[in-house]
Amino acid sequence: MSDARARVRSLVDSSRFQWFIIAVIVVNAAVLGVETSPGILDDARWVVTLGWVTVGIFVVEIGLRIFAHGRDFFRDGWSLFDLFVVVIALVPASGTLGVLRVLRVLRVLRLLSAVRSMRRVVAALGATIPGMASIGALLLMLVYICGVMSTHMFGGTDPEHFGDLPTSLLSLFQVMTGDDWANVIRPVTDEHPAAWVFFILYILISTYIVLNLFIAVAVEALDRQSEDDKAEIVAEVEEGEGLMLAAIADLKDEVARLRADLDERRA
Amino acid sequence: MSDARARVRSLVDSSRFQWFIIAVIVVNAAVLGVETSPGILDDARWVVTLGWVTVGIFVVEIGLRIFAHGRDFFRDGWSLFDLFVVVIALVPASGTLGVLRVLRVLRVLRLLSAVRSMRRVVAALGATIPGMASIGALLLMLVYICGVMSTHMFGGTDPEHFGDLPTSLLSLFQVMTGDDWANVIRPVTDEHPAAWVFFILYILISTYIVLNLFIAVAVEALDRQSEDDKAEIVAEVEEGEGLMLAAIADLKDEVARLRADLDERRA
Amino acid sequence: MSDARARVRSLVDSSRFQWFIIAVIVVNAAVLGVETSPGILDDARWVVTLGWVTVGIFVVEIGLRIFAHGRDFFRDGWSLFDLFVVVIALVPASGTLGVLRVLRVLRVLRLLSAVRSMRRVVAALGATIPGMASIGALLLMLVYICGVMSTHMFGGTDPEHFGDLPTSLLSLFQVMTGDDWANVIRPVTDEHPAAWVFFILYILISTYIVLNLFIAVAVEALDRQSEDDKAEIVAEVEEGEGLMLAAIADLKDEVARLRADLDERRA
Amino acid sequence: MSDARARVRSLVDSSRFQWFIIAVIVVNAAVLGVETSPGILDDARWVVTLGWVTVGIFVVEIGLRIFAHGRDFFRDGWSLFDLFVVVIALVPASGTLGVLRVLRVLRVLRLLSAVRSMRRVVAALGATIPGMASIGALLLMLVYICGVMSTHMFGGTDPEHFGDLPTSLLSLFQVMTGDDWANVIRPVTDEHPAAWVFFILYILISTYIVLNLFIAVAVEALDRQSEDDKAEIVAEVEEGEGLMLAAIADLKDEVARLRADLDERRA
Repeated sequence: MSDARARVRSLVDSSRFQWFIIAVIVVNAAVLGVETSPGILDDARWVVTLGWVTVGIFVVEIGLRIFAHGRDFFRDGWSLFDLFVVVIALVPASGTLGVLRVLRVLRVLRLLSAVRSMRRVVAALGATIPGMASIGALLLMLVYICGVMSTHMFGGTDPEHFGDLPTSLLSLFQVMTGDDWANVIRPVTDEHPAAWVFFILYILISTYIVLNLFIAVAVEALDRQSEDDKAEIVAEVEEGEGLMLAAIADLKDEVARLRADLDERRA
Repeated sequence: MSDARARVRSLVDSSRFQWFIIAVIVVNAAVLGVETSPGILDDARWVVTLGWVTVGIFVVEIGLRIFAHGRDFFRDGWSLFDLFVVVIALVPASGTLGVLRVLRVLRVLRLLSAVRSMRRVVAALGATIPGMASIGALLLMLVYICGVMSTHMFGGTDPEHFGDLPTSLLSLFQVMTGDDWANVIRPVTDEHPAAWVFFILYILISTYIVLNLFIAVAVEALDRQSEDDKAEIVAEVEEGEGLMLAAIADLKDEVARLRADLDERRA
Repeated sequence: MSDARARVRSLVDSSRFQWFIIAVIVVNAAVLGVETSPGILDDARWVVTLGWVTVGIFVVEIGLRIFAHGRDFFRDGWSLFDLFVVVIALVPASGTLGVLRVLRVLRVLRLLSAVRSMRRVVAALGATIPGMASIGALLLMLVYICGVMSTHMFGGTDPEHFGDLPTSLLSLFQVMTGDDWANVIRPVTDEHPAAWVFFILYILISTYIVLNLFIAVAVEALDRQSEDDKAEIVAEVEEGEGLMLAAIADLKDEVARLRADLDERRA
Repeated sequence: MSDARARVRSLVDSSRFQWFIIAVIVVNAAVLGVETSPGILDDARWVVTLGWVTVGIFVVEIGLRIFAHGRDFFRDGWSLFDLFVVVIALVPASGTLGVLRVLRVLRVLRLLSAVRSMRRVVAALGATIPGMASIGALLLMLVYICGVMSTHMFGGTDPEHFGDLPTSLLSLFQVMTGDDWANVIRPVTDEHPAAWVFFILYILISTYIVLNLFIAVAVEALDRQSEDDKAEIVAEVEEGEGLMLAAIADLKDEVARLRADLDERRA
């Protein structure tokens, strides 16, 4: 039993098997893309069949991995993610569960867990998020405050963009991304020319905070690298120290031996 | 008396009390958001009541902090900011003071003073501003010069965008942010094709200055970090030096003792 | 024979000859530009003649280089590129080969191979591409997944932007570049207000990935530079070590000689 | 005579005098701004008078500086720039010289020469330009090649954006800045759907080159700073070396003295 398990494990962990699964994921992604155009589907039922074959392969693969790794399977986040994605594919997509049909495309995300360098990139992207928390909160606060203010001040003048708080927040988000901002604020500034000051200050401050958000991410990325450089220099310095301290200790022994000689002679 | 003061101080400085105040600020922010839609307010008078309760808590908190810290309260910028924000909340918002109603949302800014990591971020953002002063002044000068020039040159052709100096400055600011710039300058370039040269030069130069503004901020952020790295390497080098100098001094003593032995013997 | 070859080689490799070729490439580029306006061509047949003269010079140059370098010519990527570009110029541009007429402008790319600093820049730009592969793949995956989802969800509501998968992918690419995104998604969000969440998440995540793509390029560029700095510091440290170890070894010899003296005297 | 010159020189070089000139430049800039609205000018003739007074002050200042510095004045680029700007102000702005009226606003640029930190910023901005030359040339080449290609391919379909080479170049510049690019290319892509590939490749490649242009500027700025850090570390390492080599040399003397003692005793 445990022997069969070991053999299965060496199979599912082999790089050949993993490349095969990556290929199946890519085929599955293509099928999901083709399935978006109902016209093509009627002409090519084999695409749907191919889709079910890939799902079948996923089910078998997950089964083998559960068999091979036992409880450890359920302790690994990526494995649970794979299981979740495959289970969604099997739920019948009818009626109120129609949204699950859309979620099926998440299967493409299995590439993240299947390709090692992708896992590393995702981990790296995730690692920089906490460093952005404080600046991100500051940005949220700015948008919220300006949203409340602009709803009070401009809600009457331009209800389309500033009629209620959610609309104002979306308009301010749009202004922050710099998309067509001059047209968004035109109805307001035509009536209250002083509103320009409000919006220009908002653009300058929000851009400045976004810039610092970006810089925080960049500094963190550079930090990791310069940390390595520093460690290398310090290691070099310490190695040099070690060599020299050894040489000095050696010299000290030499002097000690000299002294011993003299003492001996004196005796 | 001074005993009561110490007890109040340990209360207002306790982290539990501060988390409570942060929660009250968040609730207050939500109330300010809800208050933007008058319809909801009629159905839910309790929201207004909740708003007044939070303001009441702020008043009590400020009172306790003044009692606890005495004159020191008025020497701390953040404390004065909190006091100012709470006072605004108490001014009746009627007639000409309607603008104060809008300023009430500044209460949300109390999060800045209440959350320690926010204070640090705000301080860091503020610290990089002086380094941008010269480049920012250069950018202002460029926009001003181009504003005067374009008002003279294009004011007649396209009064909507370049009719007077403030309008020109706003149009040039819009062009600088890259928002819909081709449409802004179209009326002018349709009449004077050579105006393209003016605007493309303006776009290239202003983008270049803005880029350098951003880089100045990034370099300052990286500088702070690499300063730490450098200090660590230098400390490591100095520590090594210390160790080795001590070892050499030790050895010198050894030789000196040997010499003393010889001298003694000779004697 | 081999003597003629050596003379030709010293000619084609001379910097004077290369500057002449660069000038011919620039003239050829200008001719290609003028040829875009058929009106001018009728008035100035000499421009076409000039174009053929420059092509003739290219043919002679390539011939000389093949003669001078022999088989080595066909082993150098840049040389093959030059040959390919010149051959295209000679193919008659008629009927189905009309597309070759357009490809003739690639001749301008000969500047890349002719100017040394351009070659270096192109090599540097190419070198940073592999470092972007994983993040780029992640971005592709995000756009693909969101494309499939938005075709399923919004294809019925707004066929112009999300009618089929290619259209959705292009719309999402446009949203990612921040161009007029609010108008692209308006028809959808007017019907399904909850779609805002989908699009804002898409904008935030795709911007974050693009930012990290940019940072990866920047970190790689900075890495090359800081690598040099580190190497210089390490070399300095090692040189210092060498000097000191030599001094200590020298001292050890001194002590050893002293001991030998004593031994000798004892004997 | 030379005594008067020295006194004038100490006047024009005094910081009080320079601050006065800076104030005059700012007043002059404001006058130039007011002069853009002819309506205000009729009501406030004193503004024109003020303008002439500031120009008068500039003339006197330049005169004093020429007197004080003699020939050296004409060897300093900034001084010649000041002279040029003041001379333009004096040329009568009539008829064909109307363009000089516009150039008068360049007087504001005198701030660059008058404020020391501005001079440094301008010098720093200028210093990074050469490092961008190769990448900038690459970008120009890309835009030119794509301009010729799109004029050939799309000139017939959409003459408004790609009718001739200059128009195509401007359209491609607009697409590169990301302004409304989807609308610019719509007429073309509606007719030739494959044109999407051309434009998306163009956007990706041009963005990548622009990004590298920006990174080149950033790396150069960071380089200057890390150069300082490196120099500091190397200096620290060298100082440590010096100390230790001195200590070792000292020790060697000690040993030498010991040997001398022994030699002496032997004798």
